[in-house]
Amino acid sequence: MAQHLSFQTAARYQQRVRATAPLVHCMTNEVVTNWTANVLLAAGASPAMLADASEAEVFAAIASALLINLGTLHVAQTQAMTAAVDATRRSGKPWVLDPVAVGVLPLRTRFCHDLLGEKPTVIRGNPSEILALAGEASEVRGPDSTQGSDDALTAAERLARDVKTIVAVTGATDYITDGKRTIRVDNGHPLLQRVTGTGCALSALVAAYVSTASNEAEVLEAAASACAVFSVAGEEAAQLAHHKGPGSFAVYLLDALATLDEAILERKMQRRMQK
Amino acid sequence: MAQHLSFQTAARYQQRVRATAPLVHCMTNEVVTNWTANVLLAAGASPAMLADASEAEVFAAIASALLINLGTLHVAQTQAMTAAVDATRRSGKPWVLDPVAVGVLPLRTRFCHDLLGEKPTVIRGNPSEILALAGEASEVRGPDSTQGSDDALTAAERLARDVKTIVAVTGATDYITDGKRTIRVDNGHPLLQRVTGTGCALSALVAAYVSTASNEAEVLEAAASACAVFSVAGEEAAQLAHHKGPGSFAVYLLDALATLDEAILERKMQRRMQK
Amino acid sequence: MAQHLSFQTAARYQQRVRATAPLVHCMTNEVVTNWTANVLLAAGASPAMLADASEAEVFAAIASALLINLGTLHVAQTQAMTAAVDATRRSGKPWVLDPVAVGVLPLRTRFCHDLLGEKPTVIRGNPSEILALAGEASEVRGPDSTQGSDDALTAAERLARDVKTIVAVTGATDYITDGKRTIRVDNGHPLLQRVTGTGCALSALVAAYVSTASNEAEVLEAAASACAVFSVAGEEAAQLAHHKGPGSFAVYLLDALATLDEAILERKMQRRMQK
Repeated sequence: MAQHLSFQTAARYQQRVRATAPLVHCMTNEVVTNWTANVLLAAGASPAMLADASEAEVFAAIASALLINLGTLHVAQTQAMTAAVDATRRSGKPWVLDPVAVGVLPLRTRFCHDLLGEKPTVIRGNPSEILALAGEASEVRGPDSTQGSDDALTAAERLARDVKTIVAVTGATDYITDGKRTIRVDNGHPLLQRVTGTGCALSALVAAYVSTASNEAEVLEAAASACAVFSVAGEEAAQLAHHKGPGSFAVYLLDALATLDEAILERKMQRRMQK
Repeated sequence: MAQHLSFQTAARYQQRVRATAPLVHCMTNEVVTNWTANVLLAAGASPAMLADASEAEVFAAIASALLINLGTLHVAQTQAMTAAVDATRRSGKPWVLDPVAVGVLPLRTRFCHDLLGEKPTVIRGNPSEILALAGEASEVRGPDSTQGSDDALTAAERLARDVKTIVAVTGATDYITDGKRTIRVDNGHPLLQRVTGTGCALSALVAAYVSTASNEAEVLEAAASACAVFSVAGEEAAQLAHHKGPGSFAVYLLDALATLDEAILERKMQRRMQK
Repeated sequence: MAQHLSFQTAARYQQRVRATAPLVHCMTNEVVTNWTANVLLAAGASPAMLADASEAEVFAAIASALLINLGTLHVAQTQAMTAAVDATRRSGKPWVLDPVAVGVLPLRTRFCHDLLGEKPTVIRGNPSEILALAGEASEVRGPDSTQGSDDALTAAERLARDVKTIVAVTGATDYITDGKRTIRVDNGHPLLQRVTGTGCALSALVAAYVSTASNEAEVLEAAASACAVFSVAGEEAAQLAHHKGPGSFAVYLLDALATLDEAILERKMQRRMQK
């Protein structure tokens, strides 16, 4: 039975990120680099993006966390990503895997399974991706999921246990699980699906948040807090963009990430739990 | 003599795209990936972008249409693009060529002429690009055209006949032609020239629209409908951004693409025809 | 003793850029391509971005100025960049170096020192980068500076003399120096630090501005004018985005760059000098 995250917990991790401005090394797809950097900056973290394998390795020792996103993976990148993951693990820092469109496409599917052996701290994906990664039949059409997060919950829990990691499967409801304990976040808004890279940016935010955790229980809470803050910001942004569409929504999402406080988290998170 | 597109036709194809959410595989330049994806999402289509040659080939069989944009072409990309075009043609799907800055620059000019042999379903370019592609003298300075679309109409018609394709030459007036029948779209706004990648994003939208066509006459109408919807959205956005400039305009353009309905198409398209 | 820039000078160079729409060839990092292009368009310049070495070389002869930004440098890019710099120098055009995160990271640090031998017309960096480039101890954490521009002024002046170039070190105060004469710009707003790529885009704007200079004294003034126009636009944008955060701010920054006139420059620049 999934538990709700308290607004106090979400606010605590939000505060930690704003106070420490963790430096997140993002090796992400070329569609979302700018957007991801702006989401991190708005949320109080600090982005860095490097392409060269030798530099990625050096930088892993400086950064607070690493994000690996496979959206526009090409062969030459796999080497730089592996070097960065290895260096991150050696320095004891967390890393997050975003397995974009895993399942159908051959290069990323093979590479993704290699990366599971490198023990990602968190895997953040949509339901189709998490089902594919857990070896279950899933419908993958492109980067967007055709299935709901409830369909993927059991697979997420099993995957978390098998890989000894935390899995965040996000959608209308987000589930964040270590395979034993599962936290649910019910906030969010459909406009989040109409802006490219919201899932990718959330993965970067998860990396920022888990870098402030000091033990495994905190990693679970930190990952869930990133999902909660992002989802509540989505609700705020949708209100501000009322009747205006995805362009305004994306702008206000950045504004909301920067201005969201504990009072807003309380109001939005409590309301959802009462439904 | 170019015909005007009726607002009913534009609305019909807009409705088809929103109902079917075609998956558009975009192999486009690195400047406009995010913007193109957001334009497609706002318009009701679904974007996907892949970099690896083996994945691009696999994905071509899944996608509804392919876009090839040469804006930041490098040698390694030509192979992945050729593989994707071949796979798209084998699966009977449409593909759109955006020949950014063809003419002056050597790599893309050679590659572009190779691609003409692969029978693009539609070529969408600015007047300078269409003139260059048709082998006529044109002034190319950079990615922006220095000539008007009227100057390129005859060249567009000849190119369409020679390559047996549809050519959309866009500017203050858009002309969409199969070499025999030519449709004109008079909507649009000068602010479209002040945001990078509006032409590139329109090419992606053309790919989405033509994927809903079921014969050659429909391809012509679908391509013209994409131009009309985009141009009318530009007028809407300019009104919303009144006295505010290109930043606001780009945001409202996404909003307008998402919210535009048949009543707005009727009002804006009728008014232009009466001029 | 650093001099203030007069608003009349800033307005004069702004006018020149708007009148001539200089074509700026940007070889920049993949995080900021779209943003940089939109900043240039908003400011009245014309952006062009090419990836292939052979095309970059050809294009250098056509463009008005070249920007080299090392943000996501990888080995394969160094060759294309060197070819573009050589071609730019041969054609007597200016080029601007943005040494993102130089100092810690090995590839860019080596390449950056090679590029100093190619006599950049202007180097634009944050205080940490300028200190690192001048061979002084600096704290580099990522792409963002941890030091103020006052700390780097002496290093900037020495670097300018040693390399025989102009150095713009930007932050809360911007200093633009040829090693003998130093101009200060006191405008700006902290929200400029909350949007990714503002420094990178400013470097592109410096390239556009210096392309309108006809001698060395003008290059110094043109570079300072770009800093002033950008900083004043930041103040305007912050006012328009009041209490709204970095998403709105970025949108209004583009609007402000497009709409800023001499009256606003006078009001904002005079007020700062009186402090």
